[in-house]
Amino acid sequence: MKLHQEQLELRTHGKGTYEMTDQIQERVTKCKIRRGLVTVLVQHTSCSLTMMENAAPAARRDVERFFDKLVPEDADYEHDDEGPDDMPSHIRMVLTRSSEAIPIADGKLQLGTWQGIFLFEHRRDPHRRRIYVTIIGE
Amino acid sequence: MKLHQEQLELRTHGKGTYEMTDQIQERVTKCKIRRGLVTVLVQHTSCSLTMMENAAPAARRDVERFFDKLVPEDADYEHDDEGPDDMPSHIRMVLTRSSEAIPIADGKLQLGTWQGIFLFEHRRDPHRRRIYVTIIGE
Amino acid sequence: MKLHQEQLELRTHGKGTYEMTDQIQERVTKCKIRRGLVTVLVQHTSCSLTMMENAAPAARRDVERFFDKLVPEDADYEHDDEGPDDMPSHIRMVLTRSSEAIPIADGKLQLGTWQGIFLFEHRRDPHRRRIYVTIIGE
Repeated sequence: MKLHQEQLELRTHGKGTYEMTDQIQERVTKCKIRRGLVTVLVQHTSCSLTMMENAAPAARRDVERFFDKLVPEDADYEHDDEGPDDMPSHIRMVLTRSSEAIPIADGKLQLGTWQGIFLFEHRRDPHRRRIYVTIIGE
Repeated sequence: MKLHQEQLELRTHGKGTYEMTDQIQERVTKCKIRRGLVTVLVQHTSCSLTMMENAAPAARRDVERFFDKLVPEDADYEHDDEGPDDMPSHIRMVLTRSSEAIPIADGKLQLGTWQGIFLFEHRRDPHRRRIYVTIIGE
Repeated sequence: MKLHQEQLELRTHGKGTYEMTDQIQERVTKCKIRRGLVTVLVQHTSCSLTMMENAAPAARRDVERFFDKLVPEDADYEHDDEGPDDMPSHIRMVLTRSSEAIPIADGKLQLGTWQGIFLFEHRRDPHRRRIYVTIIGE
């Protein structure tokens, strides 16, 4: 069994969902592990990792609008010194995910047909987001 | 260290929670890995993976009712061409989980006393759901 | 590749978030696996595992208040024989997480600067909570 680790960087430019399935597949391909597991960790507390429908942009906009309404920016938060989008970002992160484990077979991520891996950015300003990928297999 | 991978299929017949702890334990037992880790991925974006209380059916009905209310079918979604239960299914999936990692010791899943592994179906129609199991250990 | 497994116990004294990053790092250090993956499972259905902002206590209180409001204790639950905080605890668990996978490099958990691993206790009474740690690596 082999182990490969790598840190990716993703630039975000405001709230929304950013697909990173291809970048993760690329790392799997390059490290030549053909069968095993990749785990992905988003190393932040104001953005999330999530699986999502990757074909219909309207579905992603509906998801984003749902979270805007469920965790509003104008609620009365105690922690409000980093701007109105800061505290909602931490709550949205807790409601979604930080890590996922995805199988690899024949050198390919074993995702469903419509399943993509996304970074879910909850902050308005541009950010450089770090994603840590660990691949275990043979 | 050994690696075993397998795809399960689960048939669902409408919205609700379907326990699959026994099916996953069965795969662990058959592959003869006695100590390690099993990761489970639900390969869909309109149903979820979740841990849940496995003793009280009333508790599961309360969870299901909570999600029906939190993510209603009659909200005004932009993506609505696949029926009223489609867009809520994607949002409920984002609010819950796609993958989990569960330890194995003495050949058994190391779950808590009341902890079961469930597929959480968010669509009304019957579906064949694919679950990918990766077992790493010795 | 080596495998190390250990069960931790954490005592909670009422609802709230309890950081356990240091206890998990300590297990990683002791087992001498320098590079790999640690997976953490909370073996309960009435408390959760979550990543969270670990610097600002006010941010954690906001998260806790958000969940108190989103999943209220005084809603009309069918499963209510274990007290008003029981059913909300199961729903809050489903909305958050049970397991996470965190990379290890140079013997250290590869978390982001403000990222901590927390147990999110949803019950009022004191509890002994069991957390199962699996470390795979070299």
